[in-house]
Amino acid sequence: MAPKQKICLAYSGGLDTSCILKYLLEAQYTVVCFLANVGQEEDWEAVREKAIKIGAEKLIVRDLRKEFIEELCFRAVQCNAQYEGRYLLGTSLARPVIARAQVQVAKEEGCEIWREPEFFGRFQGRNDLLDYAEKMGIPVTSTKAKPYSMDDNIAHCSYESGQLEDVSRPPPDGMWTRTDDPLTAPNTPQEITVRFEKGLPVKVSSEGKEWTDSLDLFSALNAIGKKHGIGRIDIVENRFIGIKSRGCYDSPAMTILRWAHLDLEGLVLDGRVRSLRDQFVTHTWTEILYNGLYFSPEREFVENSLLFSQQRVNGEVKIRLYKGNCDIMGRSSETEKLYDESESSMDVLNFDPVDTTGFIHINAIRLKKYGLAKLEEGNDLAKA
Amino acid sequence: MAPKQKICLAYSGGLDTSCILKYLLEAQYTVVCFLANVGQEEDWEAVREKAIKIGAEKLIVRDLRKEFIEELCFRAVQCNAQYEGRYLLGTSLARPVIARAQVQVAKEEGCEIWREPEFFGRFQGRNDLLDYAEKMGIPVTSTKAKPYSMDDNIAHCSYESGQLEDVSRPPPDGMWTRTDDPLTAPNTPQEITVRFEKGLPVKVSSEGKEWTDSLDLFSALNAIGKKHGIGRIDIVENRFIGIKSRGCYDSPAMTILRWAHLDLEGLVLDGRVRSLRDQFVTHTWTEILYNGLYFSPEREFVENSLLFSQQRVNGEVKIRLYKGNCDIMGRSSETEKLYDESESSMDVLNFDPVDTTGFIHINAIRLKKYGLAKLEEGNDLAKA
Amino acid sequence: MAPKQKICLAYSGGLDTSCILKYLLEAQYTVVCFLANVGQEEDWEAVREKAIKIGAEKLIVRDLRKEFIEELCFRAVQCNAQYEGRYLLGTSLARPVIARAQVQVAKEEGCEIWREPEFFGRFQGRNDLLDYAEKMGIPVTSTKAKPYSMDDNIAHCSYESGQLEDVSRPPPDGMWTRTDDPLTAPNTPQEITVRFEKGLPVKVSSEGKEWTDSLDLFSALNAIGKKHGIGRIDIVENRFIGIKSRGCYDSPAMTILRWAHLDLEGLVLDGRVRSLRDQFVTHTWTEILYNGLYFSPEREFVENSLLFSQQRVNGEVKIRLYKGNCDIMGRSSETEKLYDESESSMDVLNFDPVDTTGFIHINAIRLKKYGLAKLEEGNDLAKA
Amino acid sequence: MAPKQKICLAYSGGLDTSCILKYLLEAQYTVVCFLANVGQEEDWEAVREKAIKIGAEKLIVRDLRKEFIEELCFRAVQCNAQYEGRYLLGTSLARPVIARAQVQVAKEEGCEIWREPEFFGRFQGRNDLLDYAEKMGIPVTSTKAKPYSMDDNIAHCSYESGQLEDVSRPPPDGMWTRTDDPLTAPNTPQEITVRFEKGLPVKVSSEGKEWTDSLDLFSALNAIGKKHGIGRIDIVENRFIGIKSRGCYDSPAMTILRWAHLDLEGLVLDGRVRSLRDQFVTHTWTEILYNGLYFSPEREFVENSLLFSQQRVNGEVKIRLYKGNCDIMGRSSETEKLYDESESSMDVLNFDPVDTTGFIHINAIRLKKYGLAKLEEGNDLAKA
Repeated sequence: MAPKQKICLAYSGGLDTSCILKYLLEAQYTVVCFLANVGQEEDWEAVREKAIKIGAEKLIVRDLRKEFIEELCFRAVQCNAQYEGRYLLGTSLARPVIARAQVQVAKEEGCEIWREPEFFGRFQGRNDLLDYAEKMGIPVTSTKAKPYSMDDNIAHCSYESGQLEDVSRPPPDGMWTRTDDPLTAPNTPQEITVRFEKGLPVKVSSEGKEWTDSLDLFSALNAIGKKHGIGRIDIVENRFIGIKSRGCYDSPAMTILRWAHLDLEGLVLDGRVRSLRDQFVTHTWTEILYNGLYFSPEREFVENSLLFSQQRVNGEVKIRLYKGNCDIMGRSSETEKLYDESESSMDVLNFDPVDTTGFIHINAIRLKKYGLAKLEEGNDLAKA
Repeated sequence: MAPKQKICLAYSGGLDTSCILKYLLEAQYTVVCFLANVGQEEDWEAVREKAIKIGAEKLIVRDLRKEFIEELCFRAVQCNAQYEGRYLLGTSLARPVIARAQVQVAKEEGCEIWREPEFFGRFQGRNDLLDYAEKMGIPVTSTKAKPYSMDDNIAHCSYESGQLEDVSRPPPDGMWTRTDDPLTAPNTPQEITVRFEKGLPVKVSSEGKEWTDSLDLFSALNAIGKKHGIGRIDIVENRFIGIKSRGCYDSPAMTILRWAHLDLEGLVLDGRVRSLRDQFVTHTWTEILYNGLYFSPEREFVENSLLFSQQRVNGEVKIRLYKGNCDIMGRSSETEKLYDESESSMDVLNFDPVDTTGFIHINAIRLKKYGLAKLEEGNDLAKA
Repeated sequence: MAPKQKICLAYSGGLDTSCILKYLLEAQYTVVCFLANVGQEEDWEAVREKAIKIGAEKLIVRDLRKEFIEELCFRAVQCNAQYEGRYLLGTSLARPVIARAQVQVAKEEGCEIWREPEFFGRFQGRNDLLDYAEKMGIPVTSTKAKPYSMDDNIAHCSYESGQLEDVSRPPPDGMWTRTDDPLTAPNTPQEITVRFEKGLPVKVSSEGKEWTDSLDLFSALNAIGKKHGIGRIDIVENRFIGIKSRGCYDSPAMTILRWAHLDLEGLVLDGRVRSLRDQFVTHTWTEILYNGLYFSPEREFVENSLLFSQQRVNGEVKIRLYKGNCDIMGRSSETEKLYDESESSMDVLNFDPVDTTGFIHINAIRLKKYGLAKLEEGNDLAKA
Repeated sequence: MAPKQKICLAYSGGLDTSCILKYLLEAQYTVVCFLANVGQEEDWEAVREKAIKIGAEKLIVRDLRKEFIEELCFRAVQCNAQYEGRYLLGTSLARPVIARAQVQVAKEEGCEIWREPEFFGRFQGRNDLLDYAEKMGIPVTSTKAKPYSMDDNIAHCSYESGQLEDVSRPPPDGMWTRTDDPLTAPNTPQEITVRFEKGLPVKVSSEGKEWTDSLDLFSALNAIGKKHGIGRIDIVENRFIGIKSRGCYDSPAMTILRWAHLDLEGLVLDGRVRSLRDQFVTHTWTEILYNGLYFSPEREFVENSLLFSQQRVNGEVKIRLYKGNCDIMGRSSETEKLYDESESSMDVLNFDPVDTTGFIHINAIRLKKYGLAKLEEGNDLAKA
């Protein structure tokens, strides 16, 4: 093992990392704490004070919100990413920017990154940590009775374990922090318009206001979505390591952006490209991110393809928010012309019906032969 | 061409098929009309009278609702089928059962199926049809001013063309027929429970009532879902023939069942099987159905795989319906044990953290090498 | 229909296009003939004379060999493209460059492209064409007794129909034109070395000679491969329109290049990227090309991904040719370092076996649970 | 850790397992050795004597050749499995039957399976093992100078590491054991016929002899293929754990069977089913097996799909073997009718060319619109 020196510890101020900090100090390390600002609710000064009080050399905070939104969250929007049909990846998206920043900080401070086998055997779960914290005089806010764990960033808040492990029951009242209850949300809907360029959100407007900066528009969508109860998810999901776990997530901005983007693609993206992108890029990118493989050649490979697909995703989408609903009120694009109003009309014929007959006949060559083969075997396709 | 004799015409009572019927009679065919009951809103007697009045030999109605639900709609539920992320395939699902029944009827009645090239040149759109109908004294209910076309069955109602061709605007007030407006839906949520066996809905219960027959439970879900405004979709979609068109659909029962099934799979389906099923079976089955290729070897191939995946999809899901929202309130399975409450707990360690270190190290062998190669080229992964 | 004026006819000098040329002239069109040089065996002057003699205004020949090789054949090599596991796409690759050039020529000459429905009814197969040719005094080289049809370009020669329709028998003696018989090929093997940059062949060397120009190296590989009987394929394949047909193809250069490229990728391409590329890009690009959809957004989408994957495919491969065999004799790369000699050694341990235990344990969490579920149902995995 | 008692050790008689056996005995375990007969070249009695001499309680040998061939090798043939385009999986296919049998033996003998962390630290590679063997008096056949390692079974022999780690050079002379050198193989080709039912080889015949038993026909193909130098592969492949390694394999029977099966599928399998099977089932099954995940739900899921695809793979294929070449000489099926000789003829038109025009026109709707969009942007598709 390398000589014990200066270590860069990702520090949240919570039970786990406070115990780790103390444990490292006891083991004679010098510890620089690192705290990423990815938009979580946090009393930054309180965390700093706690770190210093326990004995850290310093706490370095980095504001990663814009790179988190622009490089990760917006990429997920371009991808329509949804893990297992629902989860919008909030936690998975934050990790790469946090990890990258921690490596930078460690380099700048002359530290090592840290992952310590001995620590694993030292603490066998939350109760051991609580006992250690009590013994060492580490102030804790969570207690043994805490009903579930939370993790938040600007993309979402996640709720896991504790009470939530009983998957047959809904989350407890008052759990959700990023969304108001749809049952008590305003009776009046609110319309917003989202504009995309190359699949990236570049403007949000609603009720006379307008946001164009990435952080501003994302924050505005979070605030508006919160009010209307948009984006609650309760899912039993499959973890990379092969276990199932239940996660609850509320992610207003991501929900609205994903839905708007999905709709715009219907208008502007070629059908075959979309189908290939959905099946290969969206599915694969989502799993890569969920499994923590952001810094991999396969992520770069798939993301290159994603970006190529977004070249024509230009236009805007109107959305109505109302008590948990996110409904499309119209979409348009000044530059993309794949949708042709006259063409989809039934009042005027836009192609020769003889062509459709030919199309059907040629497509049927194979199917007829197959149907005949089945018939010869006694399987009449005309029987239920 | 074959001698002109007896023809089996799929007849709806609407403008198109009434004109075709008249046209065929003028061309000296004997015509047997066929009308499939797939749960559409219909005045069956009025259609019969109209057909007879125009000159059909008879109108044969077949009630296909149960086979439609059990063989097609439930298959789509097992598949979590959603075309281009949203459309639940209501029209596509009905066509195979209609086509199959029409072939049966044609056989029984000694008729030919019919598709006539000359007819294509005769009528160049809706207005030509209206002129012909007027000239021939065919009573029409739709007029030149009709704002959009509709097609319904027990799975949904679809709305297309006309006013809807302007995709930048929401559907007109009062268009939706299968769902009440979420804005005026009841203020009190309603809970329902759906039980699945091998991925098939076998029982629905709500507020002390219970439905087990497939047609009953599907109808009950439609009624309950309608009341709570569940299942409206407005989408610009890509047609098989390569044009984009806008479709609006309301499909309450399908929406609820798909959502419940998706959730249950989270609890009971192995993660890798699910991922493979999602990427290959769900995507492919959905496209096959949308493209009208039900009677194909590829549909049989993919469906075989779908059914295999459903063997363990047993359990029930509680759902709360409220003003357009369809929220999971819990899920459970007496027989499937892949989810393990203790295992996902953070209070007790269920596997050796040293194992996770090994897992991470081995997964990192490839990534480290890649990161080093990038670094040598001057691309430091630790830079944003 | 547009006024009958000047038409650009793709003219080969063969039976079909000579009859079409005559037929068009009789229908009062002015005809400019176009002949693409994609490397086929051809007496160019004889074709020109025949066209002029029948009555064409002129014959325009374009040498497309380099763009054919560089833009299409090399792309297929980068892709390791093989339709249905065997066919190297020779004909499919040539069509896009021919079509593109014909459109250019038609524009330059003020012509229309041409495809005439009436012609379809006029001739019902080869015998009708032969009768017409005889009547019109068109000289024909093929006769009613011709045993199969051929189509060649620099990538391959294809042989189809006629005698070959009996798929239970091997091709007739003496059919192959691009490859000598492996049974009588030299008894002495020949080694060649192929160097790739970004997946593109940039140098071929053998027996003291060296070729770097794309056309030169491709031609050299054809000549060397011919001598050693490399690249014969006999396959029953599935056509886009849904029928099966038998094709025989000999394509020496393409066979050697594909094999060399495939091998080099083993050395330099990341495993996950390769797996994704194989499953999605290679499979899809190959089908797109085979189905004639080169000028499509999906081809551009997939090809963008292909090119990205080739950035690190740099190095060289030694191959030994011998009586139909194409065997790898070694590969190397000066720039790519993913393969590490020491790492794959069994004499020294390069990673901690405890890590592999952890890797195995974590991967087994899911499998154990599954095995237990099966056991409870009475299916012991330890039984055959 | 569980009490040290009776252990079932997979024992090969080689250096590694002999040292492990001794090491276990020294650690006071009782050891039952297990040796699977999967068709490897082996002096069974010598292995037994060595095990007993070192101190094993007994050596249990199980003949697994038929289940290996029928359940694993033939499944790979049905799948046309080839890892990374070349490797026929010989080693990967053997492991599941060996593991299953070892578990059975361990149960029968009241043993535990065994994998010991302490052992990892004890020996740091081959040289440590050799030193230990010498010290303990364990007779070894391999020496420090051994140029590569080998592992064989009835499917193949694999050669790895040592000299082979230099991937720029061909394997050493005389390395291959399962195939004679193509350069000195007979000058006279040999024809064989393979008959398949549901994709499974059921009969092989050649030169008046015939084999129908699975083990017999597989052994016959190995013998015939050996003589003609069929099935050598030299590949740099990507391991599950993320490293690249070079493997050489010779597998005559597997090569011939795969090639014959691939060809027959061209004749009898629907094109769309084949494409889906190739992309999803073949690719996925191959990776699952290579990665050692045979006893997994995903293998069962994918294999179910594979078996469904094979229902119509009935017929026979003639193959000519000659100096490393495996050439198709014809194929036929009495029961499957998808190939239609008349249909693929060019002498008679079998479908209306007007239909193909319609097919082309409809397929072009989307492409035209795309081409126009590109043109408007200044990208003329008619330019190279």
